[in-house]
Amino acid sequence: MNAAVAILSVGDELVLGQIEDTNAAWLARALQAIGRTPGERRTVGDDRRALADALRALASTHAAVILTGGLGPTLDDLTREALLDVVSPGAALVEDEAGVEHLRGWFERRGRPMPASNLRQAMRPPAARLLANPHGTAPGIAAEAGACRIYCLPGPPNEMKPMFDNLVAPGLRDDANVVATAALHSIGLGESALAELLGELMVRGREPSVGTTASDGIVSIRVRATGAPDVARRALEETVAQCLSRAGSVVYGRDGEPLASVVGRMLAERKLTISTAESCTGGMLGSFITDVAGSSAWYVGGAVTYANERKIVDLGVPAATIEAHGAVSHETAIAMARGALARFETDLAIATTGVAGPGGGSEAKPVGTVYVAVARRDGDVFSRRFHFPGDRTTVRRRTAHLALACTRFLLLGEGARSLLWSEGEAVRVERA
Amino acid sequence: MNAAVAILSVGDELVLGQIEDTNAAWLARALQAIGRTPGERRTVGDDRRALADALRALASTHAAVILTGGLGPTLDDLTREALLDVVSPGAALVEDEAGVEHLRGWFERRGRPMPASNLRQAMRPPAARLLANPHGTAPGIAAEAGACRIYCLPGPPNEMKPMFDNLVAPGLRDDANVVATAALHSIGLGESALAELLGELMVRGREPSVGTTASDGIVSIRVRATGAPDVARRALEETVAQCLSRAGSVVYGRDGEPLASVVGRMLAERKLTISTAESCTGGMLGSFITDVAGSSAWYVGGAVTYANERKIVDLGVPAATIEAHGAVSHETAIAMARGALARFETDLAIATTGVAGPGGGSEAKPVGTVYVAVARRDGDVFSRRFHFPGDRTTVRRRTAHLALACTRFLLLGEGARSLLWSEGEAVRVERA
Repeated sequence: MNAAVAILSVGDELVLGQIEDTNAAWLARALQAIGRTPGERRTVGDDRRALADALRALASTHAAVILTGGLGPTLDDLTREALLDVVSPGAALVEDEAGVEHLRGWFERRGRPMPASNLRQAMRPPAARLLANPHGTAPGIAAEAGACRIYCLPGPPNEMKPMFDNLVAPGLRDDANVVATAALHSIGLGESALAELLGELMVRGREPSVGTTASDGIVSIRVRATGAPDVARRALEETVAQCLSRAGSVVYGRDGEPLASVVGRMLAERKLTISTAESCTGGMLGSFITDVAGSSAWYVGGAVTYANERKIVDLGVPAATIEAHGAVSHETAIAMARGALARFETDLAIATTGVAGPGGGSEAKPVGTVYVAVARRDGDVFSRRFHFPGDRTTVRRRTAHLALACTRFLLLGEGARSLLWSEGEAVRVERA
Repeated sequence: MNAAVAILSVGDELVLGQIEDTNAAWLARALQAIGRTPGERRTVGDDRRALADALRALASTHAAVILTGGLGPTLDDLTREALLDVVSPGAALVEDEAGVEHLRGWFERRGRPMPASNLRQAMRPPAARLLANPHGTAPGIAAEAGACRIYCLPGPPNEMKPMFDNLVAPGLRDDANVVATAALHSIGLGESALAELLGELMVRGREPSVGTTASDGIVSIRVRATGAPDVARRALEETVAQCLSRAGSVVYGRDGEPLASVVGRMLAERKLTISTAESCTGGMLGSFITDVAGSSAWYVGGAVTYANERKIVDLGVPAATIEAHGAVSHETAIAMARGALARFETDLAIATTGVAGPGGGSEAKPVGTVYVAVARRDGDVFSRRFHFPGDRTTVRRRTAHLALACTRFLLLGEGARSLLWSEGEAVRVERA
């Protein structure tokens, strides 16, 4: 028996790869936050016996098991039955009165008739108890198998997460020992270049440990410390400070903070507003920005100018500019940014234009060629050409991230800016 | 020894839940496509022994193991060493000349000096061979452990996927037996309501099997058939046909086809163009649309009018309308759609406005209240109020999906339209 907490994800759609399992990673993070170590992670399909076997095996080697999925109203949801086989073999599921009330109320409040099939969701093993689900029809179920606590939660993340936080975490919290982790997010340097800056901090076996991961142009530094809360947290912060001093201004945020919210905070502090002019990103940049709650304080909106006609009419890009240099060029990107600045009357404006692929590439401008321009009210415009590897989605996501990064470096001032504007990539700067 | 293929994902960042593992699900799908069954799925951290132990265990019970991750240039990338411990215990890694050439060329072509650390990526166990990686610095590694074939691929999906398709799949393909799967995607009915339509098709043990999953407003019907290629594929298509006839027009696509590309095809067939006017989605709708390669044929662009001022200036929404009914209302949504129609001169225009949260909710319009309007050139405008549960991201994603769904039902005509426009939700239709 180890103190770790196993994570069991249930569903044919997961085993077959028909949907992504985001619950397991979220739970791993949530467990560490309360001082518990993520244990074995398994994924099983909608098979009563396979599910019961996995549950039995994990329960015999872990202090607790968090199961997600298989609590839906349909016949392929078998978590209730499998849990019964493990905690009350041979018994029958019983209908939980409070559970039935919850279901009736759920549908009544929505003025919809309750499909009979939903009643299955009020069933539980005799020895178990239901966990209230304020955001969906599926209650969770808690039970014990020997010394192991088993928590079954619904699969939909928006239902599972609050249930874990409110009903599961309090019972699992361990204040004697913690796994303290930190993630420092950077953009502007490649993974190897960043690793060279971090040097021996990344040596294996070092405590706290330091590692890096890269995704869509963002390189994250992962730090991990284990031990008594105070000791681990102090060691973590010391290593974090060392990483920060070595990596420098390419680090924009910590522990999942989105690049857009960092840029937003910088804009808010400076009382500046921004607008967007998007071609190849087609709205993704605006979407990243408005993912940030409260972004209306510094983001007014923008133009998605996918067709050249829209670039000309909505942003005032001279037709001659597109004619002469192409829609994917420094000149067009700069004109788009200046057009947005004028039209939306903001202090800054970001423009993106590029060849996202799979078609549209040429010898001079292959797929992955992207121009990002940032214009400032004082008249300066910075434009940079990038060439991103990868498919259409990757190119678009990288473009949106680097557009935000360009804005951040611009706001940071010359020193940091040079980092981004001098990496062997074509750059054009226009002064008013 | 079973014929299944194990999937081993490597990286502390996965175990700790710092990043999502999308490779495992993709590989599960890719394996089925070539007639192989996904076997055990494990996730291990950057620990040489744990990695070697897992590799050894999986190799002893599976016909093949696909490992992803741990091939980077940094000291926390230990897949090469762990593979050595499994296939050539006691031996040392050797430098692969072709691998070194690949790395030198990679950096030369980018006009960058090669960090010394990257040379580690050219190392391999003596008994193994490197797999060329056209899209990154990390070569893959192939080796045998007893009767099991082991393929190690880099973690970045844009590098891993083509390497699997070109270098791994050909050797694993099984034409004697297949697992045929199909996913039918629907929007407009809840999961339980759809399940009632499918009835006994969803009974456990049925072959082919039928299940449902829901995500961001989209409910997918999963069908799976196993057996000899012809038999399985015929059985699959028969069940798919039954599902389609029962579910009706709420099914919009199959096998991952995005809703936006379906709407795009309908528009292209009808030679119609569309534009977007986004408030609460802030560009996400345009981003979903432009994720579709070739969308420029039917999508010209749109306005992200996050601030009310932008709704008034860019879309001509009367200030009095916002004053009287609020920015989140049928009236404003309808004015936004009509404004986009006029400004962008398209045949249709979609508008979104809502309270994505966490703030901004009220008694009358709680967080999750969203209005979607679709205007047609003939002057008709359809507007529907939704109330979505979930967090800011969920509300925004559902809004973008339902906005596309409203457009689809509109294009399908009255019969299908009634489905979406008569579900106990407030609807307003203005005729020219």
